[in-house]
Amino acid sequence: MAKSLSEHLTVSGPIKLADHDSRATTGFDGDKDDSAKSMTLLAEDLSEQQERLFANGQAETGSSRVLLLLQGMDTSGKGGIIRHAAGLVDPQGLSIYSFKKPTPEELEQDFLWRIEQRLPAPGKIGVFDRSQYEDVLIARVRQLAEPAELERRYDAINAFEKRFTDSGGVLIKCFLHITSDDQKERLAARLDDPTKHWKYNPGDIDERMLWDDYQRAYEIALERCSTEWAPWHLIPSGRKWYRNWAVAALLAEKLRGLNLEWPAADFDVATEKARLAGT
Amino acid sequence: MAKSLSEHLTVSGPIKLADHDSRATTGFDGDKDDSAKSMTLLAEDLSEQQERLFANGQAETGSSRVLLLLQGMDTSGKGGIIRHAAGLVDPQGLSIYSFKKPTPEELEQDFLWRIEQRLPAPGKIGVFDRSQYEDVLIARVRQLAEPAELERRYDAINAFEKRFTDSGGVLIKCFLHITSDDQKERLAARLDDPTKHWKYNPGDIDERMLWDDYQRAYEIALERCSTEWAPWHLIPSGRKWYRNWAVAALLAEKLRGLNLEWPAADFDVATEKARLAGT
Repeated sequence: MAKSLSEHLTVSGPIKLADHDSRATTGFDGDKDDSAKSMTLLAEDLSEQQERLFANGQAETGSSRVLLLLQGMDTSGKGGIIRHAAGLVDPQGLSIYSFKKPTPEELEQDFLWRIEQRLPAPGKIGVFDRSQYEDVLIARVRQLAEPAELERRYDAINAFEKRFTDSGGVLIKCFLHITSDDQKERLAARLDDPTKHWKYNPGDIDERMLWDDYQRAYEIALERCSTEWAPWHLIPSGRKWYRNWAVAALLAEKLRGLNLEWPAADFDVATEKARLAGT
Repeated sequence: MAKSLSEHLTVSGPIKLADHDSRATTGFDGDKDDSAKSMTLLAEDLSEQQERLFANGQAETGSSRVLLLLQGMDTSGKGGIIRHAAGLVDPQGLSIYSFKKPTPEELEQDFLWRIEQRLPAPGKIGVFDRSQYEDVLIARVRQLAEPAELERRYDAINAFEKRFTDSGGVLIKCFLHITSDDQKERLAARLDDPTKHWKYNPGDIDERMLWDDYQRAYEIALERCSTEWAPWHLIPSGRKWYRNWAVAALLAEKLRGLNLEWPAADFDVATEKARLAGT
C-alpha cells in the first residue's frame, strides 16, 4: 500500500534539521503550476469534508474535532498557511488562535492552561499559530525555565496531546522548515516593501541571531514529542506553493480518514414534509 | 455623483416588506454568470482592504474595525454569506460569532452584555450571525419581554451602536429579505436532501407559522434602528448569487471608505537592513 502523505512527512527519532532540504516537494509530483490545479481540487474536497465535520458537531452526533498546529521560525509561513490552506474552508468551521507572549494571568497557571482553553469544539477545525511548543522552544533558548522544568514539559505535552486525541481530537502538528538563508531573503523582502513593514519587528533579528539554538530546540522537541497519537510533520517550506499545498493536502487526508457520514435526521422526514406543505 | 451601493440598499422610515421584491438585483448590472466574474475581482479588492485593516490593527496605528451584522428568517442565507462573502478574506482577520438562545448567565445581564463581549477588536472584521436584534424580534413575537422593555431596547440598541461607531467601528447591518414562498422552497430542498437534514429543525416550522408576526417585528426594528451612524440595508435574498455579491460589494465599499494606508515603519529601515546583512 502506498504511503500516505502524513507518513511521508512524519519525523521520528533523533533528527538533524540541516539534513533536510527546505526546498523539497515530498509527495508532490509537479511544479508550481500543477500545484494551483491541485489546490482547486483540494478546495472542493476540503470544503465537503469540513462541512461533514461541522454537521456532526452541530448535530452532536460525534466528538470529532481537528487541530492544525503550526510552528516554525519567523517568515516560515504560519500566516500564509492559514490564509491559503485553512482559508479554503468555510470560516464558520474554523477556530484560529495566535499565541503571543503569555499574559501575567496566564503565567500564574501551568503552561498548558491557556492552551486547553483554545482547543477546538467538536465539529471545528482549530488552527494554532504557535502553541504549547513555545514553552520548550523560546523557553529553552532564552532560558525562561529551569532545565528540570523543561524536561517535565515534554512529557506533559505528550500526555496533554494524548488526552486530546483520546477524546475525539485529531492533532496535525506541522513544523515549517526553512533555512537561515530562506529567512534572510524573506526578511530582506519585508524591509524592501513598505506594504510589508508592519510585519517586521526589530526583535526578529535578535531571534535570528539565535538561529542555531532554535534549530537545536526544535530538534529536541520534534524528537521528544513525535508520538504515535500525534506525530510531528516536517513541512519543507522553502517553496511557498509546496508548503501551502502540503498542509492543505495533509488536512484533507486526515479529514477523509475520519470517514464522516452526514448525520441522520433526528426527526421524521415525511411528517415534516407534510407540516411544511400545510403552511 | 452616483449613489453608493450602501445608499441604494439603505432603508429608512416606515417600511412595508411586502413591497420589496426579494428577487431584485439592485445596483448590479448583469446576471449570475456576470456576478461570478465580479466576485473574483471583489475577492482581490477585499483581500487587500482587509489586510490593510488588519495591518493597522496589528501596528496599533488605528482603531478601525468593521462589524457585519446579519439578520434574516431561516434559510435567508446568513451562513451562505459568511461562507461566500466573508470567506473571501483571510480567516485570520475574521471574528465570527453566531448568537444562539441566551444562556442562563447571559439572561442575568442586560441583553447587550453578551453582544459587547463579541465586538471585533481593532483590525478585525467581525461577523454576527444573528445579534442584539433577536431581543426585539423573537422577543416581540414570542412575548419574551414586556412591551415597555421592548420599547427601551430600540433606543438602547441605537445608543450602543453609536458608541461602537464613535470609537472607530463601522457597522454594516444587513437584513436578508426573502418571501414566505422563498423559504418554503428552501426548507423543502433541505428535507429532500439527506446531506442537508442536519440543517433542518422541526422548530423551523413553528417559527414559520409566525411569518407575518416576524415580518412586522422586522419592519419595526428596521424603522426604529436605521440611523445615520448605522443604517439598515435590505438585501434582496431571493437569488443567492445576488445576495452574496451584494454583501461582498457592500463590505468592500465600506472598507475602501476607510481610506486605510499601510502603517509606516516604527523602526529605521536602513538600520535594520544593515543589521540583517550582518547576520
